[in-house]
Parts: sequence; C-alpha cells; structure tokens
Amino acid sequence: MVLALEGEAPALAKLLRSEGARVLGLMERVELRLAEVAAGHGAPLATHAGDTIAAGGKRLRPLLVLIAAADAPGDAGGAVRAAVAVELIHSATLVHDDVLDGAALRRGHPTVVSAAGRALATATGDLLFSRAFAELAASGHREQVAALSAASTALALGELRQREDAWDPTVSPQRYLERCELKTARLFQAACELGAHQCEGGAIAALGAFGRSIGLAFQVLDDVLDVTGPAERTGKHRGTDLLDGTVTLPLILARQQDSSLATTDLRALSGPADAERLCDAIAATGALEEARTHALELVADAKAALPTLDSFRRRALELVADAVAERYA
Amino acid sequence: MVLALEGEAPALAKLLRSEGARVLGLMERVELRLAEVAAGHGAPLATHAGDTIAAGGKRLRPLLVLIAAADAPGDAGGAVRAAVAVELIHSATLVHDDVLDGAALRRGHPTVVSAAGRALATATGDLLFSRAFAELAASGHREQVAALSAASTALALGELRQREDAWDPTVSPQRYLERCELKTARLFQAACELGAHQCEGGAIAALGAFGRSIGLAFQVLDDVLDVTGPAERTGKHRGTDLLDGTVTLPLILARQQDSSLATTDLRALSGPADAERLCDAIAATGALEEARTHALELVADAKAALPTLDSFRRRALELVADAVAERYA
Repeated sequence: MVLALEGEAPALAKLLRSEGARVLGLMERVELRLAEVAAGHGAPLATHAGDTIAAGGKRLRPLLVLIAAADAPGDAGGAVRAAVAVELIHSATLVHDDVLDGAALRRGHPTVVSAAGRALATATGDLLFSRAFAELAASGHREQVAALSAASTALALGELRQREDAWDPTVSPQRYLERCELKTARLFQAACELGAHQCEGGAIAALGAFGRSIGLAFQVLDDVLDVTGPAERTGKHRGTDLLDGTVTLPLILARQQDSSLATTDLRALSGPADAERLCDAIAATGALEEARTHALELVADAKAALPTLDSFRRRALELVADAVAERYA
Repeated sequence: MVLALEGEAPALAKLLRSEGARVLGLMERVELRLAEVAAGHGAPLATHAGDTIAAGGKRLRPLLVLIAAADAPGDAGGAVRAAVAVELIHSATLVHDDVLDGAALRRGHPTVVSAAGRALATATGDLLFSRAFAELAASGHREQVAALSAASTALALGELRQREDAWDPTVSPQRYLERCELKTARLFQAACELGAHQCEGGAIAALGAFGRSIGLAFQVLDDVLDVTGPAERTGKHRGTDLLDGTVTLPLILARQQDSSLATTDLRALSGPADAERLCDAIAATGALEEARTHALELVADAKAALPTLDSFRRRALELVADAVAERYA
C-alpha cells in the first residue's frame, strides 16, 4: 500500500517498507475497516462520513497505534480496532469542527456540513464517536476504553476552551498550551497508549508521554503554518484561524514583541487581506521562529525520553517525531 | 429523596419507598455523580450542561438500570456508574437535538444552544458523550461498553433517519417504528441490559427486550402527546413535531383514513395555528386511539414477557411499564 504520509515522511515510509511489513499490513486492515464502518450504517453515513474518513489526511494517529503495537501477539486484531477507534474519534471531531466553523472544504473535499447541512453533520459526528467506542469495545479492556474516553473528553474540553478564549487578547502561552494539550495532544497520547496496551510490557506511560509531546508540537506547528502558509500547502488562506478569533502561539508571542500588535483586536480583521497583513506583522517580530523552536524542543525531548524498545519501534517512532517536526520545513 | 417521576408514577414511587430503599439510595448516588460530572469540567460545562442534566426529566432510564440491578452485589458501584452513563448519553442527545432544532427552551429552562450558541452546545454534547463512556469504563466490562455504544450509535442513526424522512409523506408505519427503535428504544434496552449485567444470572436478553418494548411505546405515546397536547403538560404547542417535518405515527395512520390528509404537505404549515388545525384533523380520524392502542399492546406484551425475577424487581418493572403507558392518560 501507499502510505498516506509518503510525501511528507519519506524516511519513515522507507523504514516501513523495508522492516515494517507487519505495520503496513495492519494499516491496510485499518483502511478496510474504516471503509466498512463508513459503508455499514446506511446511505447518509456512507455518503458523508465516507468522504470525511477518506479525506482524513495522513493517518498519523492510527499509525502511532500500530507502531506502538508492533509487538502485539497473534493477528493484532486489538491493535487494528484501537487504530480504527482513534481515527474515528479524530474524524468525528473534524465533522463537528466543520459544523462549528461552517467550513465548506476540508482537504479539497466538501465538508459534511456544506454537503448535507448542520443536522446531518452533527448526527454524523455523533455516529462516528459512537462507532469508535463500539470498535474498541469489541476487543479493548477497561483501561483502553478509559484512555479513549479521556482523550475524547479532552477534545471536547479543548473545543470549549477554544470558544471561551476566542478573540481574547490576554490568553497566555501557558493557557494556549493547555488548550493544545486538550485539543490535540491527548489523542496522540491515547494513540500511543492504546498501541502499547496491545503488547506485553508495553511501556504504556512512557509511550503516552511521547505521544503527548509530539501531539503538542504538531498543534504548535499547525498554528505556525496558519501564519506562514503557503495556501497551496495548507489549503486555506494565511491567518484563517486568526480570522476565526483563535488566539495562537505566534500571535501571543508577537504581541509580547510588538506593542502595536498587543492592541490589535482580531474582531477588527475585515477579511483575508487583513489577516495576511497581520500574518506579515507577526512574522516580522520573530515570533514564528520562537514558536517553532518551542515545538522542535518538544519533539527533541520526546525522542530523547523514548523508553528502551526494540530497534524497529524506536526508529519508527523517532521518524514519526521527525515527520511532525518537518511539517514546518 | 423525592423521585423525579413521583407525580406521574405514584404507585411506583410508593413501592420504591416501601421496599426499594436500596434503589432510592442508588438513585441518590446517581444524582450526586451527575452533579459532580457537570461541575467537574470547568465553567462552561457547569453552567450549560448542569442545567440540561438538572432539567433532564424523569430519570426513567437510570431508574431502569437501578431496578434491573437491584440484586447487584456489594455497593453496586457499577450499577450507579452505568445509570450515570445512560443518563449522560440521553443528556448529550438532548443538547445536540436542541442544536438541530434551534430550540429555545427545554422543560422551561433555556437550552444550551439558546444560552451559549451552537458551538458551545455541540462541544457540550460531545463532552457528555465522552463522559458517559469514561463513566462506564471505570467499572464496566467490554459487553457493557458494547451495549452503550450500540445504543449511542442507534441514537445517531435514528437522528439521521429522522432528517432523511423529514417532510416525506410516504413514510410507512414500519419505517416509523424502525426510527423509534433507533431513536428511543435502544437506549431503554441498553439501560435494562446494563442493569442486568450487574447481577449474577441477570437475564440480560430478556430484560433488554422489555426495555426495548417500553422504549418503543414511550416514543409512540410521546408522538401522540405532540398531537393531543395540552401545551401546559408538554411545554410546547400541539403539532410542534409536525411543524418540524417529523412524520409520526398519528399522522401516518390518519393519512390512511382521510384522503385530504394524505395530500397535506407539512411544508405548507405556516405556524402553530396551522399545526393545531392539522392536529384536530388527525384526532378526528381515530388515528390517536389506534396509535395509543399499539403502544399499550407493546407495554402489555413487555410485561407479560418479563422473565422470572424476584417479586420486587418484577413489580417495579411492571410499574415502570405502567408509568410509560399512563403518559397518555
């Protein structure tokens, strides 16, 4: 199979092709199962959720499950189910986020909300949430359900936090990082924990901490990309998050450097051109490098703190971390 | 404690007071835990979800869990958690339904969506879903998570089905009942199954079938109430569901009797006065009695099919069934 993240992580793809046949085989089963789930609940879900799942991107979260579970005994059915569950939670969140943002496109495909309306999109997201837990229930133990529901709770709390803090010029770096932890890092953490749960002596806590750190870095770099663009790469105008009132680390750090930015009200941005100008002003302060440096430190620390593992798992996880770090490159 | 359904089910309340001290004690723990969950996730949830949980109504679903679990060993902590989980799923659904309907009030309280907007309400519903599974994960086994996620999947599918069938004059009684099964009956079924799971020899399938039948009857009678009112009892105008395009059993049966109704387009209803006139026309066909008779048969069959249980559980379940039947009285 062709890995979804082939283009962005050639070294990881190469390792998986040479030594990761098992992980690639499991990922193929994950894709088949995701397609089955999308097709197995009637026409509305097949039409709308199918697109969302298919357009879900790089499959980074299920890949983390499968790499962490690379030593799982037997046919690793539990690892496949856990990977599917994590991706379904991620897809559910995307569907609901698009409802909230009224987004028309995601990765070039029409969103569920734009194609079918708010009602269908809300119910579709609910269905994907429910199927995630059903998937895990078929083979997961209590601790695994707890890990997934903790992550799914965190996602919802992160969304609430984002709405609560929207447009607020006083959001601190600390508060921003807490939101990233809730919105993004906890699901990466759960992915690694669920994978580790599949193996004897799976180093659950240590792999969870690794997942959390690279998830945090992933979100910070995503927020840097919102400011840097280019639009051809991100699929949206520069500053889209800022236009939505989302106060991200580049803006927070830039405000500490440039007093004119400290008094900028995001509500006053009148459109994409204004947002692009704000992005340029943020870039001029050096805040992007500062945010990027913070993310790269998170990645480096996560790699350094990886527990003792077999050589394949260790190298694969390091290359996932590198792929996250290189998002900005 | 005062039972939430005291007024509507005096015989059940009396039985619980005389012989159901344990169930009442467990219900008190459920209420405390629901309040804890609402308060335990920051200000937005406490404000908005707290109201929804508090206004959640008669607590019929958690009561079913606790009655079915009346024989549970030890402190019945698993039964309390299962009852909390079921009520949280129900609350999540209410919050999302209100988003979809743009409802301003639920049982006299402002809805989350009217108080805080769509974004917060969608995230609040997601949070309640997630907490339901977290609650169950703390003590539930795989089969219990499977039962809850099956019910939660059904709820979402029922919502999708309702949107799919909205305004459609060709919806058959069979298709209507399938929707009720998804939207309502499966969560009642899961409540009974989860309760039975707590006991040795808990007659899981039989109690699940009982819950499914009374859940189905509950929804049919709810749809009858939408047509009969009175508004003082239901808290909404007669025909509110019809105005929303929801094709319910009274309308389906009335259309078979009255050819002028068969050609009525719900989209042509211009407001509450029109909807009330349609309700009167439905009532004139005898469709309400027919729908009610169907519901009462479901309840009678459910009672007759109850498995052999100790006397308290059997009588308590029969009285729950009676309380459902008497919703229309």
